[in-house]
Amino acid sequence: MILRDLIERKRDGGRLTDDELRDVARAAADGSVPDYQLSALLMAIFFRGLDPAETSALTSAMLATGRQLARPAGAPPWIDKHSTGGVGDKTSLILAPLLAAVGVAVPMMSGRGLGHTGGTLDKLESIPGFRTDLTLARAERQLADIGCALIGQTAEIAPADRRLYALRDATATVERVQLIAASIMSKKLAEGLTGLVLDVKRGSGAFLPDLERGLELARTMIALGEAAGVPVVTLMTAMDRPLGQACGNALEVRECLDALQGGGPADLWTVTEALAIEMLRLARPTLAVSEARAILRAAIASGAALAKFRAIVVAQGGDPAVIDDPSLLPAAACIADVPAPRDGVVQAIPPRPVGQVIIGLGGGRTKADDAVDPAVGVVFGVRVGDAVRTGMPLATVHASSPGALATAVDRLRDLVVIGDAAPADTLPWVSHRVTAAGVEVLAG
Amino acid sequence: MILRDLIERKRDGGRLTDDELRDVARAAADGSVPDYQLSALLMAIFFRGLDPAETSALTSAMLATGRQLARPAGAPPWIDKHSTGGVGDKTSLILAPLLAAVGVAVPMMSGRGLGHTGGTLDKLESIPGFRTDLTLARAERQLADIGCALIGQTAEIAPADRRLYALRDATATVERVQLIAASIMSKKLAEGLTGLVLDVKRGSGAFLPDLERGLELARTMIALGEAAGVPVVTLMTAMDRPLGQACGNALEVRECLDALQGGGPADLWTVTEALAIEMLRLARPTLAVSEARAILRAAIASGAALAKFRAIVVAQGGDPAVIDDPSLLPAAACIADVPAPRDGVVQAIPPRPVGQVIIGLGGGRTKADDAVDPAVGVVFGVRVGDAVRTGMPLATVHASSPGALATAVDRLRDLVVIGDAAPADTLPWVSHRVTAAGVEVLAG
Repeated sequence: MILRDLIERKRDGGRLTDDELRDVARAAADGSVPDYQLSALLMAIFFRGLDPAETSALTSAMLATGRQLARPAGAPPWIDKHSTGGVGDKTSLILAPLLAAVGVAVPMMSGRGLGHTGGTLDKLESIPGFRTDLTLARAERQLADIGCALIGQTAEIAPADRRLYALRDATATVERVQLIAASIMSKKLAEGLTGLVLDVKRGSGAFLPDLERGLELARTMIALGEAAGVPVVTLMTAMDRPLGQACGNALEVRECLDALQGGGPADLWTVTEALAIEMLRLARPTLAVSEARAILRAAIASGAALAKFRAIVVAQGGDPAVIDDPSLLPAAACIADVPAPRDGVVQAIPPRPVGQVIIGLGGGRTKADDAVDPAVGVVFGVRVGDAVRTGMPLATVHASSPGALATAVDRLRDLVVIGDAAPADTLPWVSHRVTAAGVEVLAG
Repeated sequence: MILRDLIERKRDGGRLTDDELRDVARAAADGSVPDYQLSALLMAIFFRGLDPAETSALTSAMLATGRQLARPAGAPPWIDKHSTGGVGDKTSLILAPLLAAVGVAVPMMSGRGLGHTGGTLDKLESIPGFRTDLTLARAERQLADIGCALIGQTAEIAPADRRLYALRDATATVERVQLIAASIMSKKLAEGLTGLVLDVKRGSGAFLPDLERGLELARTMIALGEAAGVPVVTLMTAMDRPLGQACGNALEVRECLDALQGGGPADLWTVTEALAIEMLRLARPTLAVSEARAILRAAIASGAALAKFRAIVVAQGGDPAVIDDPSLLPAAACIADVPAPRDGVVQAIPPRPVGQVIIGLGGGRTKADDAVDPAVGVVFGVRVGDAVRTGMPLATVHASSPGALATAVDRLRDLVVIGDAAPADTLPWVSHRVTAAGVEVLAG
C-alpha cells in the first residue's frame, strides 16, 4: 500500500478497496504509517465521504485489528444499547440490569464524559469501589454468571480506531457520519452482539443536533450492522433539554436507583422503557410490544432489576450498601438552590450550557485526561413548561466549594429561560424508530 | 494559537488571519506543532483554498522564517526567472549568463529534478567540479563580483516552506494553486529580487497542463509579487513536446553551450529569448522590445554570454575546459539510435513518457534522494511535423548499460507517434504574456 496514492484518490473523489482499507487499518494499529498521512486521509474522507461498502470495509478492518468478546454457543442473546450522548442521559445504568434481569445478556462497553456530555463509566465509578477496567476474559465470565458486564474500551479493542479517533479529535475530522458510524460499530461489533439498539439524540444538546443528520447516522449504523449480521434498531430521542432531573455522576446514579425501584422522573422512564422494549424484542422477536412492556415492568415491580444491579455492583467490586442507602454515594460539601429570578413559565433548559456548568463544577471534562469530581452536579426541580414564582427553587446545585457553588447558581439562574407565554414546542422524547425496513414516525 | 481550531475553521470555509498564518509558519519552522495537524490543515486548504490576502500572508510568513539574500544599495537590478518545469527545459543555464553579460544580476535559486521534469541543479552538476551548495554570504559576494550565482535552496531559506512542502508531497496536497504560489514565492522573494519572470508551462507535460490553471497560477504569483513590491511578468510557454532536442543532464548542458554560441535548436532560442527580453525589460523598463532583443543578440554574438558562463563555472568550482571541449562532460557508455518503425509524419512526442524514459535510464528521480546519472538521456533527431522514413533515426539514446539502452530504444520507438496526416496543432512556444495589467495573447 502506498498511502500517498490512496490519499490522492480519495481527495479526488475516488473510492478505496476493501484490501486498501484493511491495510490502512492495520497500519494505523501497528504504527507502520506516519500520523501525518493518516490525518490527511481523514481530512480527505471528511470532504469526500465513504460509500456504504467503504464504510463497512473500514469498520470490519478496524474491528479486525483487535480482540472481541466471544459469545458461547447456546448462550442467551447478547444485546447492547449505544447512545450518541447528552446531558442527564443515564439510561445505560437502568437498561443493563433491567435487561439482564429478564434473561437478555448485556455486554456493555461504554465511554467517559467529554465536553458537555456525561459518560457511563464516570457515573458507575462514583459507586465506591466500582471497577470498569475488567479484562475481556473476566467480562466473558461475568456475562455467563450474571448476564451483564459494564466495561471500558480496553487497548485490545479496535486499536486502529483508537489511533484514528485520537487523530480525528486533534485534526477536526470527527463530524463525518461514516467515520462516526465506523468508529462506534468497530467497537460495538467487538462485543459479540446478537443485536444493538441505538439511541440517537437530536436537538441543541445532541452531538448531531439536526434530525436529518441523526437519521443518516442511524441508517449508516443499521447498514453496518446488517453487513455484520447484527440487527440494529434506532430510536431518535430528545436532547433539547436534559433527560431526567439529575445531571452529575453520583446524582445520576441516585436517580437510576429510584428508576430501578419504579420511581424517578417520568421522562427518564419513558425513554428508558422505549429502549428496553427494543432491546428485549431484538432478543425475542416474537414478543409483542405490550408483552415486552409487561415483562420489563414486572422486573421493576418484583425488585429483580434492582437485585441484578446489586449483583453487578458486587461483581465489579463496588459497595452494594449504596443501593440501600444512597447517602453513602459521594456527596458535595456545598449545596444551594437556584431561585427563580421572576414569575413566569419555564421556556427552555438548554442542555449544552447545563453541561458547561457541570464541567465548571468539576463534574465533567474538557480534555480526555481531566479528573472528574463524582459528587458535584445539578438536580432540576422544574421542567420546561412549569409555572414558577420569583424565588422558587429552579434547581439544586451540588458543589465542592462556595466559589464554585456561587458561580454555578448564577449561571443556572441566567440559563433557565423564563417567559410569560407557554413555551415553544419541545421535541417528543421518542420521535422516530428506524430499522432496516425504514423510518417510522412515532411522534411529531 | 490552537491549531485544531484553525483546521476546523478552514475546513468549514472560513479564513485565517495574518497573525494566525504567521503562527502556523513559525510553528512549522520550529517544530512546535505536530505534522499530523499541519497535514490536516493542508488538506483542508487543498479543498477550501486561500483567498488572496491569506495567500500573501502565508507567503510573507514562510519567507520570514528564514534568511534572505541582501541586495546592496546601488547594486544593479536583481532579476530571476522561475519555470514550472518540463522535459528539456534548460533555459536557466542560458539565461543566467546571458543576463549577467548585459548588466542584470541573476541570483538564481533552483531545484533538482523530480518525476518527469528535470532540474537545473542536476544539469549544472554534470559539469565536473561544479558546486551549487554555496552559502548565502558567498552567493552575495559572487553576485557582486560576476553578477550571477546559481545555487540550491539552503536550510536557511524559508524553513517553514521546506517542512510544509515535504508534508504536501507525502499527503497529496501539492496541487493547490495558492499553496504552489506561496511556496515558490516564499523562496523567490528570499533572493532579494527587483523583478521576476515566470515561465508557466502548459500542455500534457506541464505540472499544470490546463491553460486556465496556469493563468491562475500566473495571476496569483503576480499578485504576491505586487504585494511584496516585486514586479512579476509571466510567459505561458509550450510543454506539449520537449523543449529543444536534448533531454538528460550533460546532454542539455551541451545544447546550452551551443545556444550560448548562437547555435542549438530554434525552439530553445525562441523561448529563451522571449524570457530574456522580459528579464532585461524588468531591469530596464524604458527599453523597447526591439532594443532588448538587439542587446541580447549582441551578447551572444560577441561571446560575452559564453564568457560569463565560463566565469560562473570557474567561480563555482567547475572545470571550464568543458566549455571549449564538451566531450569532457560525462559521457554514456552505450549509445544507439531509435529507428522509425514506419514511414509517415511525426504527430507527437509526448513529454511525460519521455521524462519516464530518462528516469528509466537513471537520469531522473522518482524520490528526492535518488542519485542521478549525469551522462544518460535522449537527443531527438526529429521534431513534431517532420516527415520520416522507416529506419531513419528518430532519436539517439545515451545509456549506462546495454539493457537500459535496449529498453529505452524500444520505449521511444513506441512513444513517438507517427501517422500519415499532418499532425494536429501543437501549442505555440510562447502563447501569452501576463502582467499585473492583464493577459496579452501573443499567439493562438
